[in-house]
Amino acid sequence: MTEINERDRAVFEAGIKLGAMYHQFVGTPISSDTVEGLERIIEDSIALQPHVRSVSVLIDRDMVEKKLNPKFKYCELEGRMLHVSLQILYKNMIAHVELAYDEIQDYPLMSIKKIEEM
Amino acid sequence: MTEINERDRAVFEAGIKLGAMYHQFVGTPISSDTVEGLERIIEDSIALQPHVRSVSVLIDRDMVEKKLNPKFKYCELEGRMLHVSLQILYKNMIAHVELAYDEIQDYPLMSIKKIEEM
Amino acid sequence: MTEINERDRAVFEAGIKLGAMYHQFVGTPISSDTVEGLERIIEDSIALQPHVRSVSVLIDRDMVEKKLNPKFKYCELEGRMLHVSLQILYKNMIAHVELAYDEIQDYPLMSIKKIEEM
Amino acid sequence: MTEINERDRAVFEAGIKLGAMYHQFVGTPISSDTVEGLERIIEDSIALQPHVRSVSVLIDRDMVEKKLNPKFKYCELEGRMLHVSLQILYKNMIAHVELAYDEIQDYPLMSIKKIEEM
Repeated sequence: MTEINERDRAVFEAGIKLGAMYHQFVGTPISSDTVEGLERIIEDSIALQPHVRSVSVLIDRDMVEKKLNPKFKYCELEGRMLHVSLQILYKNMIAHVELAYDEIQDYPLMSIKKIEEM
Repeated sequence: MTEINERDRAVFEAGIKLGAMYHQFVGTPISSDTVEGLERIIEDSIALQPHVRSVSVLIDRDMVEKKLNPKFKYCELEGRMLHVSLQILYKNMIAHVELAYDEIQDYPLMSIKKIEEM
Repeated sequence: MTEINERDRAVFEAGIKLGAMYHQFVGTPISSDTVEGLERIIEDSIALQPHVRSVSVLIDRDMVEKKLNPKFKYCELEGRMLHVSLQILYKNMIAHVELAYDEIQDYPLMSIKKIEEM
Repeated sequence: MTEINERDRAVFEAGIKLGAMYHQFVGTPISSDTVEGLERIIEDSIALQPHVRSVSVLIDRDMVEKKLNPKFKYCELEGRMLHVSLQILYKNMIAHVELAYDEIQDYPLMSIKKIEEM
């Protein structure tokens, strides 16, 4: 057992943000017209939280198009439609993490891309 | 027992939209800076759904201000912060409904305001 | 325009409950082992709300099985997996409503089944 | 910049689970009668997810009691009512994390308690 350090905290905070965002917004009614607005508000709601250095949210337009109900012309936001890149800054440690759809596992995968000192 | 009519359907659809919106968005991280963007995206996500004639969403800025965490400068969207006016059009029937904070009951109250033929 | 009556209120409350339940629970991690517990807690959380006379929630086991991630052995609750039958009692009016997956429209459809006086 | 290791991954996964749980279940209608059932289903839904070694969820009965709407006798689950202890096992690393209400900051605080090798 070792002391908890800044690197641990940066990575932990990054995980919290991705998990929270996912379960807050998945299920939101969405169409091609509202994709961009939803991307921005998801980004904004993440950016408000402690230790967020930067965040970018991209919703896959093709998946949205394919999922649109033919009659009602909208669908629900799904985890696999989301591509999120997030940087957490905790003291002088930066954790770069990502949510991206993994086609092989058919799973919206969250992963650490890089950890660096500022 | 009587036939289900268009008036019933208009009112039912109105209830669905309010209930759905509430449980989709309550919990979203919010601050004074993101209130307006969140109002618009909630409106947009409601407007996408079947039979919505018009919708307006207002988030109480004063309540948001009061609930801001002093250290982290954001809070979570609560039901009592929401004021939603919604019109559902089903065939030729219009249901006007509302979500508004009821201070006396301390409860985010959903109610039918008016039902009319077009 | 006509007076809002008890029938309107019963149907409106029924819509609220279905919409709320849907957006509260869709997205919950689920497997064959937890289906039954989740059905009960969804029922319980609906039954707490005003004017609920009875509620029954059924989650489609076959759909859950098919959606299980092969590696991680769980999936997320989707709207199309849900079958909900709900009775709202408002004064002496009973509204029977349902959420059921409509295969033809590929849509989790909410509908009024019957409205009766007690 | 250094290689991402098992310790990082354990801590990251722990953050994901806490953030996800929080935003999935906050807002659920709850009363003293349903507290226990909801605790179990939250535990079960976390335990399904990858790398979870153990989890325990406790909902503060006193806070629920105090928040019960006097007329309707239920309230909504809030983040501050939740006490969650979670262990993530990634390869041979164990991360112990917690969600607990911090009275001083009036904030549902997520923190790393311990990281150890198995």
